[in-house]
Amino acid sequence: MTTINGYEQSDREQKLNILNLPALEAEAKKIIPKGGFGYISGGSEDEWTLRENTKAFNHVQIVPRALTEMEHPTTETTVFGIKLKTPIMMAPAAAQGLAHSRGEEATAEGLAQAGGLMAQSTYSSTSIAATAAAGKGAPQFFQLYMSKDWDFNRSLLDEAVKAGAKGIILTVDATVDGYREADIINQFQFPIPMANLAKFSEGDGKGKGIMEIYAAAAQKIGPDDVRKIAEYTNLPVIVKGIESAEDALLAIGAGAQGIYVSNHGGRQLNGGPAAFDVLHEVAQAVDHQVPVIFDSGVRRGSHVFKALANGADLVALARPIIYGLALGGAQGVASVVNHLNDELKIDMQLAGTKTIADVKQAKLIRH
Amino acid sequence: MTTINGYEQSDREQKLNILNLPALEAEAKKIIPKGGFGYISGGSEDEWTLRENTKAFNHVQIVPRALTEMEHPTTETTVFGIKLKTPIMMAPAAAQGLAHSRGEEATAEGLAQAGGLMAQSTYSSTSIAATAAAGKGAPQFFQLYMSKDWDFNRSLLDEAVKAGAKGIILTVDATVDGYREADIINQFQFPIPMANLAKFSEGDGKGKGIMEIYAAAAQKIGPDDVRKIAEYTNLPVIVKGIESAEDALLAIGAGAQGIYVSNHGGRQLNGGPAAFDVLHEVAQAVDHQVPVIFDSGVRRGSHVFKALANGADLVALARPIIYGLALGGAQGVASVVNHLNDELKIDMQLAGTKTIADVKQAKLIRH
Amino acid sequence: MTTINGYEQSDREQKLNILNLPALEAEAKKIIPKGGFGYISGGSEDEWTLRENTKAFNHVQIVPRALTEMEHPTTETTVFGIKLKTPIMMAPAAAQGLAHSRGEEATAEGLAQAGGLMAQSTYSSTSIAATAAAGKGAPQFFQLYMSKDWDFNRSLLDEAVKAGAKGIILTVDATVDGYREADIINQFQFPIPMANLAKFSEGDGKGKGIMEIYAAAAQKIGPDDVRKIAEYTNLPVIVKGIESAEDALLAIGAGAQGIYVSNHGGRQLNGGPAAFDVLHEVAQAVDHQVPVIFDSGVRRGSHVFKALANGADLVALARPIIYGLALGGAQGVASVVNHLNDELKIDMQLAGTKTIADVKQAKLIRH
Amino acid sequence: MTTINGYEQSDREQKLNILNLPALEAEAKKIIPKGGFGYISGGSEDEWTLRENTKAFNHVQIVPRALTEMEHPTTETTVFGIKLKTPIMMAPAAAQGLAHSRGEEATAEGLAQAGGLMAQSTYSSTSIAATAAAGKGAPQFFQLYMSKDWDFNRSLLDEAVKAGAKGIILTVDATVDGYREADIINQFQFPIPMANLAKFSEGDGKGKGIMEIYAAAAQKIGPDDVRKIAEYTNLPVIVKGIESAEDALLAIGAGAQGIYVSNHGGRQLNGGPAAFDVLHEVAQAVDHQVPVIFDSGVRRGSHVFKALANGADLVALARPIIYGLALGGAQGVASVVNHLNDELKIDMQLAGTKTIADVKQAKLIRH
Repeated sequence: MTTINGYEQSDREQKLNILNLPALEAEAKKIIPKGGFGYISGGSEDEWTLRENTKAFNHVQIVPRALTEMEHPTTETTVFGIKLKTPIMMAPAAAQGLAHSRGEEATAEGLAQAGGLMAQSTYSSTSIAATAAAGKGAPQFFQLYMSKDWDFNRSLLDEAVKAGAKGIILTVDATVDGYREADIINQFQFPIPMANLAKFSEGDGKGKGIMEIYAAAAQKIGPDDVRKIAEYTNLPVIVKGIESAEDALLAIGAGAQGIYVSNHGGRQLNGGPAAFDVLHEVAQAVDHQVPVIFDSGVRRGSHVFKALANGADLVALARPIIYGLALGGAQGVASVVNHLNDELKIDMQLAGTKTIADVKQAKLIRH
Repeated sequence: MTTINGYEQSDREQKLNILNLPALEAEAKKIIPKGGFGYISGGSEDEWTLRENTKAFNHVQIVPRALTEMEHPTTETTVFGIKLKTPIMMAPAAAQGLAHSRGEEATAEGLAQAGGLMAQSTYSSTSIAATAAAGKGAPQFFQLYMSKDWDFNRSLLDEAVKAGAKGIILTVDATVDGYREADIINQFQFPIPMANLAKFSEGDGKGKGIMEIYAAAAQKIGPDDVRKIAEYTNLPVIVKGIESAEDALLAIGAGAQGIYVSNHGGRQLNGGPAAFDVLHEVAQAVDHQVPVIFDSGVRRGSHVFKALANGADLVALARPIIYGLALGGAQGVASVVNHLNDELKIDMQLAGTKTIADVKQAKLIRH
Repeated sequence: MTTINGYEQSDREQKLNILNLPALEAEAKKIIPKGGFGYISGGSEDEWTLRENTKAFNHVQIVPRALTEMEHPTTETTVFGIKLKTPIMMAPAAAQGLAHSRGEEATAEGLAQAGGLMAQSTYSSTSIAATAAAGKGAPQFFQLYMSKDWDFNRSLLDEAVKAGAKGIILTVDATVDGYREADIINQFQFPIPMANLAKFSEGDGKGKGIMEIYAAAAQKIGPDDVRKIAEYTNLPVIVKGIESAEDALLAIGAGAQGIYVSNHGGRQLNGGPAAFDVLHEVAQAVDHQVPVIFDSGVRRGSHVFKALANGADLVALARPIIYGLALGGAQGVASVVNHLNDELKIDMQLAGTKTIADVKQAKLIRH
Repeated sequence: MTTINGYEQSDREQKLNILNLPALEAEAKKIIPKGGFGYISGGSEDEWTLRENTKAFNHVQIVPRALTEMEHPTTETTVFGIKLKTPIMMAPAAAQGLAHSRGEEATAEGLAQAGGLMAQSTYSSTSIAATAAAGKGAPQFFQLYMSKDWDFNRSLLDEAVKAGAKGIILTVDATVDGYREADIINQFQFPIPMANLAKFSEGDGKGKGIMEIYAAAAQKIGPDDVRKIAEYTNLPVIVKGIESAEDALLAIGAGAQGIYVSNHGGRQLNGGPAAFDVLHEVAQAVDHQVPVIFDSGVRRGSHVFKALANGADLVALARPIIYGLALGGAQGVASVVNHLNDELKIDMQLAGTKTIADVKQAKLIRH
């Protein structure tokens, strides 16, 4: 354990023997301090949307196929021109120092080991440059929480470009903090600085709650911001937090090169739909103009399969990977991604789908 | 604590630190005597409709919106020509002396503090005049349980007009007491007089059960009563307890200037639908001819949002406000309304709806 | 307590203070010996259909009505030319000596007190004549489990006619015993003779299980039997155990003057539908040619209301009445029927339905 | 008890007094060692599909029929030209030595006693010849897990033909092991050799997990394999593990003479549909060209009935029969089949269906 400002961080580094991703939560809870764990695991209000996120995968079923003469499925895929070993990627999540002393550096390292795409958050515990370096050349996206202060935004984007980010994820569903009760119960304030905020007048986040941090960010976000960021960085901008055809088309009209369907893991608008329940409709509106990323509720290989079959090109998750980070550092992260990818491969074989392209053509049924 | 006729009333007066409205019930249960708590919290028969009232909000979902360039949502609204800080209002509820020694006076004061509309019941513990005075000029409605005795009705209406009521809510869904088992188990009789009944021959309610009190009221209510009250008071008459298009149109045809969709918080006809499930149909029948008020099951900002989006102009609730009254007097009441309004504002921001008018245009989906 | 063949029978005689019918089961369980209680309360297989019988009433909802100028609802009704104070009747149920030393005599007396229709079973503990006498002229139906031996059948029908039965209920859904696990677990055999069987060679039922008793009855039943019984008795024949339009029309074609929709209280074919779920379809096929009786799962006034609104003319139940019999004899029976009728009256008032004819026209909705 | 390689096998031989099949599991768990029990009882991932398999039977209901003049139902049926006393058959299941020292020999003997069809697995504990001999001429099918090594396949098929198998079941839904967590938790390896593997270079299975064993089997299976096996054996080939119309038609097009709808008892693709939910669609595609066998989730007579009514000609199950094997050897197996057949007969009588052909014409409804 490493102690920082009185907060005990895991510093484990080991491969994990994983039974399944849901089982990681109880293990991680034992070693992540209560406030940090509440921040990571919690959702908003009574968490109906959070629970529905995972339940919704049971709304449809995969059709098992046989007699397809199929064997040796492969999860390799190329999205945004990036060749990946797996369609499973890291969802950008704040403050991973809450789970491990190496924070996002270890996450980036783990994703690189597993061949998956890393996305780092504006509110990461480690800096853009350090996180990028830890990935040793593996592809990364940078996620932007837009500030009201464009000098700040430009500075972050400059750093991201300089660090070799392959794309910018612009989060648009967090213009105010969802009402997260665990944080309130725990009176949670970030005990660890956020590296990217450190040099700005707003402060480094330490000692603040997520509500205050979001309050400093921009509440007003529109298509022009998408356009501005795309032009400034010359990188693909992926708009994250889309749950309607309307917003998807607004984003694409403004030059978005990716649509990221998500409800922020049930941490923002409770009473909204399970993200999976709207994926198909959004993907149909996008109509293959740009790639679609999906997150919220993914815990099983079959969830990844169903999301791909319903229109996603990449499938992201954060909580289980952060639990892997706490329990095993970079190797723990890789263990989680590898395990989930192994489950996906079994499902691919049993559904007669040899490639990710085949999965995307697979029929789902509703009973 | 204040003791009246052996009944212990709270006399707390303090702001409340509220996590959420559902959590207030357990706290309030500790300080409201059993009989009073059973009367306030209970529903009829096996409470299927009561439970369904709140569950039904999950039948539809709010579509999160982004890229709307929206910020600073406001909950201000004008209904019945009354400018309000919030669309959240007090549902008229009887006998609030069961929860607090100041009864409806403190409720009125709390609603005024929060900028919401107060509605006082015929069966209030405090008199019309006293309740009105406590509101210090803030808008109030008076709710009428029609007696068989029109002298009595006229007398109450005279007082309400004199006290400056902005409207009369005529309750039409309680021509007999719903079968409320908690009251029977507790052999509950009102320990505290009902101020408005005190000067009439029927008695002041003390020592009676709700079944007897309703029995003294009119069982036979029709459009003519609506017309009569409207003409007599020259105030807008809002008909409360409507759950069908037929009744809404009967009421409007008789001159009602407001339709109040409610199933009396699941306290009357068990086996009827959740009030939220019929709101949309009734609102469509009303077709903006008059404002629509909604109550029954509201506990969350997202519930308020969904009710507005499904056709309500004002959204009422009673039990959680009465719990706030018990726990904190007038300030407790204001705390509850403010908290719920804060939740609503978060939902408005995350749904891209700047005004209550926008919320009323928002799309709900069903998954 | 009275002890017969080692079996302890209640001999209570008192009015009951009833909260609701479901609550009677736990009280009755305390005083009815285990084997008898298992026989009375149990259903077949894993009791899915039994549970669904009551749950199914929640598949539709009553529309509360107001502004109807309605008061003083009445439950009086005339069916089969019989004037009744209530549409609630006793379902024919075997062996009520298991619950009370006076058995069906007390039940008949209680039904007469409450103004409801009594139906006695072939397998009653008390004889046709004695049961009829206990009713003191109040209307009764006789239920026939058809034997393979027509001499036996004719003899019973002769007695029923002689005793003044107003109709014959022919049960057709019990050509074999449903697989009732409670009876098997308890190795249940009837400890008390069945009076109507006593004089026949088949034996009086004592020391037999229900499976053996049904085995002695006719397995082969068809329209000709309906015709034969109608012609022989010159009484209305009501065919009980109908759950399809096909069977209803077969019965009517053969001269049935009543259709009794029932799944034997979930005691016969488990995996069949809730009786309430098929009532509407059967009633539509019957199309008012003859009256419709309904049972299976009725526990609340709202259930009676919904059954009437979905096509029933009379609504029967057995278990809760038998529990009332155990707890209070004839007065207990009357208490149960009166309580249920009181709940029905509340529902009628709140739904704006003054008469049973109005209830039958009431709209139900499905949410 | 018999102990083999440290594994304790039941050697009971007795008739069982069965209440119902689901209740057998807890009894069997007491005498089957943990690893073996986990292998037998477990499903894949979080067992959603396994649970749904049994729940899905409640998605439809049997229509009770009366007035059909029907009695003495018979479960005799002729399928694949084989006359059987019951449509209930043994699903081919591996390694029954885990449950009983006599393994498949006792199962075959029990099925013969009950008049049901035996199917033995490639991975049986006892050899094809020994299992066949134990059946004493009663009909058996042989199930093939196709190896990559055709010499091996041919050798097994030769033995099956020689032993008098009436058909070959080719399993096509297990080209990789489903993710079965119980086996992983228990670190389960087969303690007992698989007789049919013993003479081949791949080893006899002892000390291996199911994952390794499946890995040695063919992953690539297609219509040509069906054709090849049919031509080689000149026996009907039944393709097992079909859950789509597409695969059914592929199989028939390649000469399959039977379609076996199954999801391997929820042990393969979790997140796929309940097998019962796809049965009707597959049967419609098959359109009586060849017989349909069904398994997965069958525990009750009503499940057998519903499967037949939805298109199956034979209904198989394994787990409850294996529990019967553990608890009572051959007689235990017969007890289970007989009990289930008895439940089926009750359902047939109550649904007015005299023959299996009638059951297949029975109407199911959906509420």
